[in-house]
Amino acid sequence: MATRQREISISEFFSKNRHLLGFDNPQKALLTAVKEAVDNSLDACEDAGILPTLKIEIRQLEDDRFRIAVEDNGPGIVKSQIPKIFGKLLYGSKFHTLKQARGQQGIGISAAGMYGLLTTGKSIAVTSRTGAGKPAHYYEIQIDTRKNAPQIITDKVVDWEAEHGTRVEIELIGTYKKGRHSVDDYVRQTAIANPHCEIFYTPPDAAEPFHLQRGSEMLPAEPKEIKPHPYGVELGVLIRMMKESSSRQLSAALQKDFSRVSSRVAAEICHAAGLRPSANPHTIVVHEAEQLFKAINSVKIMSPTTNCLSPIGEEQILSGLKKEIDASFYTAITRAPAVYRGNPFQVEVGLAYGGSLKSEELIDLLRFANRVPLQYQQSGCAMTKAVLGIDWRNYGLSQSKGALPTGPVVLFVHIASVWVPFTSESKEAVAAYPDIMRELRLALQECGRKLSMHVRAHRRAVDEQKKRSYIEKYIPHIGIALREILGLSDQAEKDLVVTLKDVLERSRSREQFTD
Amino acid sequence: MATRQREISISEFFSKNRHLLGFDNPQKALLTAVKEAVDNSLDACEDAGILPTLKIEIRQLEDDRFRIAVEDNGPGIVKSQIPKIFGKLLYGSKFHTLKQARGQQGIGISAAGMYGLLTTGKSIAVTSRTGAGKPAHYYEIQIDTRKNAPQIITDKVVDWEAEHGTRVEIELIGTYKKGRHSVDDYVRQTAIANPHCEIFYTPPDAAEPFHLQRGSEMLPAEPKEIKPHPYGVELGVLIRMMKESSSRQLSAALQKDFSRVSSRVAAEICHAAGLRPSANPHTIVVHEAEQLFKAINSVKIMSPTTNCLSPIGEEQILSGLKKEIDASFYTAITRAPAVYRGNPFQVEVGLAYGGSLKSEELIDLLRFANRVPLQYQQSGCAMTKAVLGIDWRNYGLSQSKGALPTGPVVLFVHIASVWVPFTSESKEAVAAYPDIMRELRLALQECGRKLSMHVRAHRRAVDEQKKRSYIEKYIPHIGIALREILGLSDQAEKDLVVTLKDVLERSRSREQFTD
Repeated sequence: MATRQREISISEFFSKNRHLLGFDNPQKALLTAVKEAVDNSLDACEDAGILPTLKIEIRQLEDDRFRIAVEDNGPGIVKSQIPKIFGKLLYGSKFHTLKQARGQQGIGISAAGMYGLLTTGKSIAVTSRTGAGKPAHYYEIQIDTRKNAPQIITDKVVDWEAEHGTRVEIELIGTYKKGRHSVDDYVRQTAIANPHCEIFYTPPDAAEPFHLQRGSEMLPAEPKEIKPHPYGVELGVLIRMMKESSSRQLSAALQKDFSRVSSRVAAEICHAAGLRPSANPHTIVVHEAEQLFKAINSVKIMSPTTNCLSPIGEEQILSGLKKEIDASFYTAITRAPAVYRGNPFQVEVGLAYGGSLKSEELIDLLRFANRVPLQYQQSGCAMTKAVLGIDWRNYGLSQSKGALPTGPVVLFVHIASVWVPFTSESKEAVAAYPDIMRELRLALQECGRKLSMHVRAHRRAVDEQKKRSYIEKYIPHIGIALREILGLSDQAEKDLVVTLKDVLERSRSREQFTD
Repeated sequence: MATRQREISISEFFSKNRHLLGFDNPQKALLTAVKEAVDNSLDACEDAGILPTLKIEIRQLEDDRFRIAVEDNGPGIVKSQIPKIFGKLLYGSKFHTLKQARGQQGIGISAAGMYGLLTTGKSIAVTSRTGAGKPAHYYEIQIDTRKNAPQIITDKVVDWEAEHGTRVEIELIGTYKKGRHSVDDYVRQTAIANPHCEIFYTPPDAAEPFHLQRGSEMLPAEPKEIKPHPYGVELGVLIRMMKESSSRQLSAALQKDFSRVSSRVAAEICHAAGLRPSANPHTIVVHEAEQLFKAINSVKIMSPTTNCLSPIGEEQILSGLKKEIDASFYTAITRAPAVYRGNPFQVEVGLAYGGSLKSEELIDLLRFANRVPLQYQQSGCAMTKAVLGIDWRNYGLSQSKGALPTGPVVLFVHIASVWVPFTSESKEAVAAYPDIMRELRLALQECGRKLSMHVRAHRRAVDEQKKRSYIEKYIPHIGIALREILGLSDQAEKDLVVTLKDVLERSRSREQFTD
């Protein structure tokens, strides 16, 4: 038995369990690969304060074989980092940072490259330049799954027209389809949630790229990195943090390594724990750490700061919806930040109604997490559960029991967080934490109220229009009839019609005010 | 950006995403920890050909704090391997082996230890002895999540009464509940699916252990390790296998590294690929590998051998059900092995009916994969989907649309495979591959037919009993009446009654045969 025990590399693990990463089937694989590359591009541009311009291309090589390319105008990647970023799972800058970002895990793009390699034997190709004066580097990389390490196949300097940015190309076995769960749909939703982003999108069947224009020239506010909040920490993590603290005194360690711990709060915690504020955090033993842990949760501490979040904002949501959806009414709500398990998060809801949207179908629910569209596992997602938990008949839509409401509505739901609690590594659905559910419900209800006001006002306007048109239509005939019956002159008939109209109009508007 | 990129250890990843491993909440965490330890114990015993005797203890230390211990009479673990097996994620002997086992991933028990450490700060404690003459080693281990490596806290030789075996202890934050999803239920189900296993189980509220006795003295047949089948291999894997082959000729490599490739089949593949059988597999280039890949899938190759599987068997399933469930009718079916994506698998279904089982409730569906009970994510599991896909009214049970049938039934469903396609790392539900669904359906239907035969025969027996009791009851009265009417003697009356009974009995049995 001893001789056969061995290490399993994370790449081997995920190549055998690739459905966990969203590569279950060819259609999903194509989408996931595009999505991972786009996530990285948008994160990189925003981090560098650059308004993103993306090129997304899908070329069909054979029946089931595609080559995708995603190119951005971001800051580029320094040469030495390229192989690891694209050829090693669990490598990245975002995992250890409490700050809103699309990527979290350092798995996505390398996994997409690994899937391409597994199914076609082809390398992932990366071109990147960090600035005008710098060379553009071109790499072809294959992940060595046994070692979870990049193997460099090609490494050269190339001519490239872009001043700065990164281009990623992956060849893979996939299926391209239109409609729900399609790349087309993903691109459209990305444009809605990221109105500051310009996209040139070339699907396999198009000769020229579609140009999705920017709806806003304003970059989202840059989220700031925060320290963990004491309420969210676990005993084991607390022990490690104290052991690894750069401070030599317990009180200082608490203040420096956590957010929202003032010297007063630190003193309170130490007191409640029965520990000296000057104690050495490195030598704390388990039972002292337990006391500290209990003390933390007994002391009142301010909620975490929320500048680690960068919500889309009501204005931008409206701009995104208006840009991509032809409707007659738009509304949006951004809730104030809240906290689940110590992690700040924020919920936003947007809604488009009427126009060319179809009235007889279930509403179109668009789900987003940190501005990324979620297209799979709808029923398992907190956002769907929250929508289903509301009686939309109160807001003027029809709804069967347990189903989404029916009506000409696109409903946009967004969660921004420093750590979105996804239900799987493939990041397709959000876990239904009670705090998150509550915020979702409140945002949806507020949106629902705005919708119902519009629907009622709209119905009234329609009714009024109908009444008005009856008046316009029949009054003249009544005039003629009265003239004949009463033997009126032309002028008398005209006067009568005007008077009648006037009276009826006035009665109609009274009706309206008391409606 | 460059400076902040860094490696993420798999332990850090899973400690932040621990819901992926089944540690979502305290109740599930307690169950998962017990389950991982039991899985390992049973695998170890069976590998060594030892009839397993397990002790499972749960001690409650505080309101939400427990110390679990699982002890087996297995072969023990050599000293040098203990730290890695219990203090490193993705380490083990089963991942790279195509052979049925409870463990697959090399994550479980280390993850349980990690969860304990995170929530209580306490080490995982392991005692192990490999044989009578050998010392018993005692270790306390903490996983260093930053490095995904074991830290040895205590390492000593201890006195231990057991001749050979392993004992694992973990202290953790948990919740102990009775009923569905409970550890009690898990232990009971484990006993059903493993009748060769003896268990002493001490829940927190018991002074003495419950003794679950062996239902069978027969160890399951030892599954044999197999080579991958050519049909299941992917291009990328094929390329790597050829590069790493120990053979120097393509034809030999195909025969040696795959199962079911004879020299004739190898020659056919080479011919179809347009490659020389004597070509060097190490120097094959991508487009040649593609030809080879296409050729493999165009040539007829025998299905994989199935001695890599060790089903429970109809007899043992019956023995397990009879041991733990009080019913009046038992049946079981073991299907012949089948293949999904190149992986051999086998489906078994058992059923217990009547007795003390309740008739007004939904049936009790017990799901197992490689003899391990699956207690969560029932609705997402292929086994549940297969049960719901059958019209049980055909088999004498009532059933509402889209629901499990209602009736006094425990339904036992088992999938054995060299690689069970779980829908998540926490191994709670099986993915609905079409080949698996078909086998499940056929097994369930067969079981259903047996059930309906029993239900009908049972109804008939009841009816017959009723008729017989009518005869017994009324014939004497008829005799008396006839005596009075016809003026019969006592003897004549007795004779008449006997004749009447006889005639009626005969007519009743004729009825029965033509029923």
